[in-house]
Amino acid sequence: MKIIHTIKEIREEVKAARRSGKSIGFVPTMGFLHEGHLSLIKKAREENDFVVVSIFVNPTQFGPEEDLESYPRDLERDSRLSEEAGADVIFNPTAEEMYPEGYSTYVEIEGELTKKLCGISRPGHFKGVTTVVSKLFNIVTPDRAYFGQKDAQQVAVIEQMVRDLNFDVKIVPCPIVREKDGLAMSSRNTYLSKEERKAALILSKTLFKAEEMIKNGERNSTKIRDFIINNIKSEPLANIDYVEIVDAKSLKYLNEIKGDVLIALAVKFGRARLLDNIRLEVK
Amino acid sequence: MKIIHTIKEIREEVKAARRSGKSIGFVPTMGFLHEGHLSLIKKAREENDFVVVSIFVNPTQFGPEEDLESYPRDLERDSRLSEEAGADVIFNPTAEEMYPEGYSTYVEIEGELTKKLCGISRPGHFKGVTTVVSKLFNIVTPDRAYFGQKDAQQVAVIEQMVRDLNFDVKIVPCPIVREKDGLAMSSRNTYLSKEERKAALILSKTLFKAEEMIKNGERNSTKIRDFIINNIKSEPLANIDYVEIVDAKSLKYLNEIKGDVLIALAVKFGRARLLDNIRLEVK
Repeated sequence: MKIIHTIKEIREEVKAARRSGKSIGFVPTMGFLHEGHLSLIKKAREENDFVVVSIFVNPTQFGPEEDLESYPRDLERDSRLSEEAGADVIFNPTAEEMYPEGYSTYVEIEGELTKKLCGISRPGHFKGVTTVVSKLFNIVTPDRAYFGQKDAQQVAVIEQMVRDLNFDVKIVPCPIVREKDGLAMSSRNTYLSKEERKAALILSKTLFKAEEMIKNGERNSTKIRDFIINNIKSEPLANIDYVEIVDAKSLKYLNEIKGDVLIALAVKFGRARLLDNIRLEVK
Repeated sequence: MKIIHTIKEIREEVKAARRSGKSIGFVPTMGFLHEGHLSLIKKAREENDFVVVSIFVNPTQFGPEEDLESYPRDLERDSRLSEEAGADVIFNPTAEEMYPEGYSTYVEIEGELTKKLCGISRPGHFKGVTTVVSKLFNIVTPDRAYFGQKDAQQVAVIEQMVRDLNFDVKIVPCPIVREKDGLAMSSRNTYLSKEERKAALILSKTLFKAEEMIKNGERNSTKIRDFIINNIKSEPLANIDYVEIVDAKSLKYLNEIKGDVLIALAVKFGRARLLDNIRLEVK
């Protein structure tokens, strides 16, 4: 498996694959891969002839006070894991390669979709995401691109961008992968102390209970949301950023739990801001 | 020659051409074609196997007080002229096809390039341009795209966007085409009364004189600019929007006339806001 650092070279690799009639699957990541990422690579391997994994800690999606510098990195381990999962090539550009001097073009979704949930505490985050994903799509020209459902708002944002800007790419959202005890996998889990790691279990436990309440007939979203908030607050190390119940595609707030429902939350434990969510089809 | 109105169909046409190994040339226009547009189509015909011309009066690049509604349209004549010039297909979508309900993604160049010259009197104009051209590039996936040098700032903006977002498209700027008497061709020339049409000649005449001054050794850009402004002001029907002397790529203001020099102006005659410019390599 090749590791490529320049746009010119990855273009050549992809074009060669295209010329031999291969379909292109793409998994954009920020590296420090875990089982969640690997499930995306495996899925891409199943559905495509040529699989590109990008590893790029994208500066434009981090706020000035965020963890850009300390974000965990391990290219050697990532390469080995990617290859085992079925990647054909890793694209690992530098920040200068992606954003050379004088860089000034941005892709942005205006309106609600990027302003709520993570958009509140991370202004500008999704602008960085849509910009880098646009660039990566133009460079890699995939047939299919794979995103983890843990970042549910990101999936909704990318889908809107692809629809609006007419990217000829099929977006494939993939289910959250969890540790055995339920914690959603995340590169940022490495920030957790032993105590915080244990406390963070409150997130998945609470979401599963909420799911059960809905399965047992509860349809009042305020009741479910209050339950989740109160349950998480019972954990002293948890610091809630948001808990919201929304339509999974439009991210509009739901009063009644009905349709394509997303219950999404962001909660801090120490310096780790963790996301988790459940998505369920409710009749 | 086919006229196609939906994104789905034009994609199929282009993909069929690609499958038979053809290169794709693309000429994006707002229709009401004149010799300037036809020179782009002819150039695309020479350099590519398959030529797509888009005709779309793009609402997002017009300000609220501008001429979106009255912009001249004549699809029948445009089709005939495009075919004669060598187009294989016309893409003529509706505004609803390009911007369906809920549309919310925009491509924008931040910073100087879009803020000066036309950016001052047309705020938001280039955001509309970069957005629609991004969409058209994703739909048509051209190898080469042709733009008229009359819209010199637009060319600089598109080139920056292509570079920044890594579009795999070669931008081909083509020279201004002029009427016999020197007036730069523009669809908006139809707005001119007989008197205004005659008065508008002051633009090209003045630019040609400025060019001569430079060829005779003048390098002081203030002197050249003052000469142009005073000369145009001698025409009572002319209403100057701007006259600027800038680097043709970065659009940075030049004190000394040296390098890749663009002398660009926008002047109103009645309701017609006309652009003209000259670009010259000065040692």
